Amino acid sequence: MLRCSVCRRRAAFYARRYSGERLCRRCFSESIEGKVRTTISRYGMFRFDDRIAVAVSGGKDSINLLHILWKIEKDYPKATLCAVTVDEGIRGYREEAIRIARENCEALGVEQITVSFKEIFGYTLDEIVEKTREKGQTPCAYCGVLRRRALNVAAEEAGADKIATAHTLDDEVQTFLLNMLHGDPMRIIRSGPRFISDDKRFTPRVKPFCEVLERESVLYAYVKGIKFQENPCPYAGWALRNDVRSFLNRLEERHPGIKYTLYRSFERIREAYAWQAEETTIRPCRVCGEPTAGEVCQVCRIISELDLV
Amino acid sequence: MLRCSVCRRRAAFYARRYSGERLCRRCFSESIEGKVRTTISRYGMFRFDDRIAVAVSGGKDSINLLHILWKIEKDYPKATLCAVTVDEGIRGYREEAIRIARENCEALGVEQITVSFKEIFGYTLDEIVEKTREKGQTPCAYCGVLRRRALNVAAEEAGADKIATAHTLDDEVQTFLLNMLHGDPMRIIRSGPRFISDDKRFTPRVKPFCEVLERESVLYAYVKGIKFQENPCPYAGWALRNDVRSFLNRLEERHPGIKYTLYRSFERIREAYAWQAEETTIRPCRVCGEPTAGEVCQVCRIISELDLV
Repeated sequence: MLRCSVCRRRAAFYARRYSGERLCRRCFSESIEGKVRTTISRYGMFRFDDRIAVAVSGGKDSINLLHILWKIEKDYPKATLCAVTVDEGIRGYREEAIRIARENCEALGVEQITVSFKEIFGYTLDEIVEKTREKGQTPCAYCGVLRRRALNVAAEEAGADKIATAHTLDDEVQTFLLNMLHGDPMRIIRSGPRFISDDKRFTPRVKPFCEVLERESVLYAYVKGIKFQENPCPYAGWALRNDVRSFLNRLEERHPGIKYTLYRSFERIREAYAWQAEETTIRPCRVCGEPTAGEVCQVCRIISELDLV
Repeated sequence: MLRCSVCRRRAAFYARRYSGERLCRRCFSESIEGKVRTTISRYGMFRFDDRIAVAVSGGKDSINLLHILWKIEKDYPKATLCAVTVDEGIRGYREEAIRIARENCEALGVEQITVSFKEIFGYTLDEIVEKTREKGQTPCAYCGVLRRRALNVAAEEAGADKIATAHTLDDEVQTFLLNMLHGDPMRIIRSGPRFISDDKRFTPRVKPFCEVLERESVLYAYVKGIKFQENPCPYAGWALRNDVRSFLNRLEERHPGIKYTLYRSFERIREAYAWQAEETTIRPCRVCGEPTAGEVCQVCRIISELDLV
């Protein structure tokens, strides 16, 4: 029997190639929880009395995040946790995810607030896809912008001080590379593990999973017996992101740890850019009053475009 | 017959997907020469009376660059051109490349200066690969550093004001991504189309091909009937660069123009970094006296390591 290289007692079940460790189930899941605690304190993500809205879609990462934050926040009696779920309106996919999210919230005794695209914007994602079929834009381009806003609406409804999203290390490096491929490297200013604007109208966003690998997130859910939505989003196949994801996975396979190296490179570039962030003026959108870097926010631009079709 | 979309007279033979043009042979090769002229003037690469050392390996890019610069510099009677060739010492590969380089230089009446790793450093690349077999380093890691220095030695011998290398757009975006994957994003400061240090001991380096796609460089050589070394370097297969190259080629296939977009992103990041470049102190290497950012230059570190084996 190969023993766990941390506790040296229990049987190893997972070889973490980037560190050379062999881990048992318990030491593996503790290592993930430990990573999240370290990330939270390294970036000063939470205060002891925060009301934290966890963005829970029903996928593995967000359900894991809910469970881990629930565990961590038990040590902070003045902090409260709630879950916010966005129903984009994707028939045959979203219903199950929402049901799973609800079951997890109920099991942990966490309040859940659900908002929908239909309520907020007047269209479901399915309707948007239908209307924009000829535009050559991927559904993700619309969904990303609208989901961001919907999360803000839900967080406000919940009276939250912070929104915690379950972006993994994989998401972060993919997004960075995608920004490059879209010719928009300045976007990294507004990304990163902790985005806290001076503008009080933005609910600050934090990413406690930003140093967790996606494959280890899947493994954590299995080890812990956590139920999550396993089917991928039916629209996900359209995106350039898939090419980037499979490239990075192949590289990680051949050069374990390379995703972490890439992540550190991006962090250093973000720091070099930081001074430019202060120069970006945020003002209220002329249409809806929400904060934006331009005249009219992206949400209002999308909606007015949809209303015309 | 599909006509050329530039001259509208001759038959098109090439569809340039990223621009939507169909080009005839003549308009295609003129477009490449035009791109190089634009790059040279955009970055102020040359003065009217420069002595330019073109780094000619014998591969398609460097032979093309020699031909195109020879054509351009005919208009500047006070400028002179010479070729510098580095013999790394790769048996069964380099000899042919050097012969081809020589034949091209002779045909154009351009003086050629050849230097070798063996003469300068005491080892051929083959010997270095033999000595470092167990290190897990790729030959490219050694070769890159030493070739850079060897080019400087040759350029000094030639009394050159500038070194022109034939790095293509593909090389540039690959290198940038590789620097990220190696966790060394600050290297971009020292890269770029034009590297001119305040330190007089560096011969300034320029890359007139930095906006030419590699596949169009191959095509240019075929259209012009230019002879070049077609076999790839026998050591090239070892490098992470191959993974990056094939990823970018696949992306470009699906999204024509994406390499240019990526290149612009990198340019913008380089600009954001520029102020840090000024803070890097360059001083003479304690061993050889050549300029370096550290105490001992990379060349001396490699050589002392080799001498120990």
